Amino acid sequence: MLLNFTKMHGLGNDFMVVDLITQRAYLRDDQIRQLADRHFGIGFDQLLLVEPPRKPDMDFRYRIFNADGGEVENCGNGARCFARFVIDQRLTHKREFQVETLGGPLSLKVDDDGRVRVDMGTPRFAPADIPFVADRDETSHHLDIDGRTVTFNVASMGNPHAVLQVDDVDAAPVGELGPKLQRHPSFPRQANIGFMQIVSPHAIRLRVYERGVGETLACGTGACAAVACGIRRGVLQSPVDVELRGGRLTLEWKGGETPIVMTGPAERVFEGRVALN
Amino acid sequence: MLLNFTKMHGLGNDFMVVDLITQRAYLRDDQIRQLADRHFGIGFDQLLLVEPPRKPDMDFRYRIFNADGGEVENCGNGARCFARFVIDQRLTHKREFQVETLGGPLSLKVDDDGRVRVDMGTPRFAPADIPFVADRDETSHHLDIDGRTVTFNVASMGNPHAVLQVDDVDAAPVGELGPKLQRHPSFPRQANIGFMQIVSPHAIRLRVYERGVGETLACGTGACAAVACGIRRGVLQSPVDVELRGGRLTLEWKGGETPIVMTGPAERVFEGRVALN
Repeated sequence: MLLNFTKMHGLGNDFMVVDLITQRAYLRDDQIRQLADRHFGIGFDQLLLVEPPRKPDMDFRYRIFNADGGEVENCGNGARCFARFVIDQRLTHKREFQVETLGGPLSLKVDDDGRVRVDMGTPRFAPADIPFVADRDETSHHLDIDGRTVTFNVASMGNPHAVLQVDDVDAAPVGELGPKLQRHPSFPRQANIGFMQIVSPHAIRLRVYERGVGETLACGTGACAAVACGIRRGVLQSPVDVELRGGRLTLEWKGGETPIVMTGPAERVFEGRVALN
Repeated sequence: MLLNFTKMHGLGNDFMVVDLITQRAYLRDDQIRQLADRHFGIGFDQLLLVEPPRKPDMDFRYRIFNADGGEVENCGNGARCFARFVIDQRLTHKREFQVETLGGPLSLKVDDDGRVRVDMGTPRFAPADIPFVADRDETSHHLDIDGRTVTFNVASMGNPHAVLQVDDVDAAPVGELGPKLQRHPSFPRQANIGFMQIVSPHAIRLRVYERGVGETLACGTGACAAVACGIRRGVLQSPVDVELRGGRLTLEWKGGETPIVMTGPAERVFEGRVALN
């Protein structure tokens, strides 16, 4: 059968997006793995499936599969592409809608300029929530790495983050310090390591060394963690523009138990039609 | 403007193929570079353009651009995809045709089973033709690498090759010995290094460490060089099946000044439509 798809990206994080409302298909694990490989298939970081909701108060069901065929809970860059896609394909007339994900309901809103607002949930800072093994529940933590004291904050956005403040993000030792801090025994489930340069109270530059991947073009939850830690420490004020290697995000957070709202781009690259076998 | 394209691969070497006979477009260097990047564009090893011939005795003009936007002379895996494409798109009723390339005219033939035969030119073995700095023009050459004597043959298919015979290609030190031999001063323009396991006089297994790339899934000229060296040494007989990491090729060579004919697969993966900006 022939399957129509759209290739999109959010800050260079790239997706194959498939409308399973107007067409019917089932993609097996081995088909997803083959499609994910650019040399023999299409190539993507994640496959996004647009399905009808199973619950009456939801607008869509949003499913995400990694290149290895495994289904995952959420992806901020993917959520923005999902929102642009359902509007561009005229699958909805709404500009703001609720989607069902494996990680729970998600609220999406498309602005007039085409940028998409995604509710990213509430940040957690308690060491046990990261998880991070600490003697005391302080705002800043310290670890000795290769005889040098490294100071950082920790935050959870559902996944664990450590955030270091640096003077110049271009000169930051991301490739050296990132993997060492990430695998430090104080992070029992490892951590994504963010290197943040504060440009002004409303602007940072950020590079993130991600778990299992290395440095990436843009880590949405890493941007949330960096901004949340900065606002909590009083060095940043909402809204904050975050400049990542792949592009720019805007983060808003009112503090406390309120959710962080992330606004960013979603780009359509090409339309395709592939034969499944 | 919207540009229609087809994504194809030959043994995992992947191509964006564009018909510039039924549609008109000009692709700038910077557009090619962006399209070549999977995260922000389509992703491909080479862009293949199908153009009308400029000479009356030719059927098509076949142009090849690397991911960096530079135009190159020839690509065996690409030539097979080109041939399948012009037939599938009904741009010709012929099954055998002549194409104009930057490297000179090329003869292509599509078999009934869809595999494509490409005339790859005549192999050269003289050291000066590789180029290879040798004391004597012998069939086999020797070099000392890290205190160990390495024995190999050399051949040119328009580009330089060294071919080593090994007992087990899976265990061959491709990643260690490949770069050392490739950059040995005896190869003034470096060389592609092939590791060949002889299964029978009509079958080899081959891994190739390519110049400027490293180990690849499938090197068409490397397969030609390995088979030509084996036939010349009397250990192989035409036709020879070559098993590469990306799949299988069949090589025929009658020896002397006759050309090597390579037969292999060309796969269509998907059809796409991209907006150029």
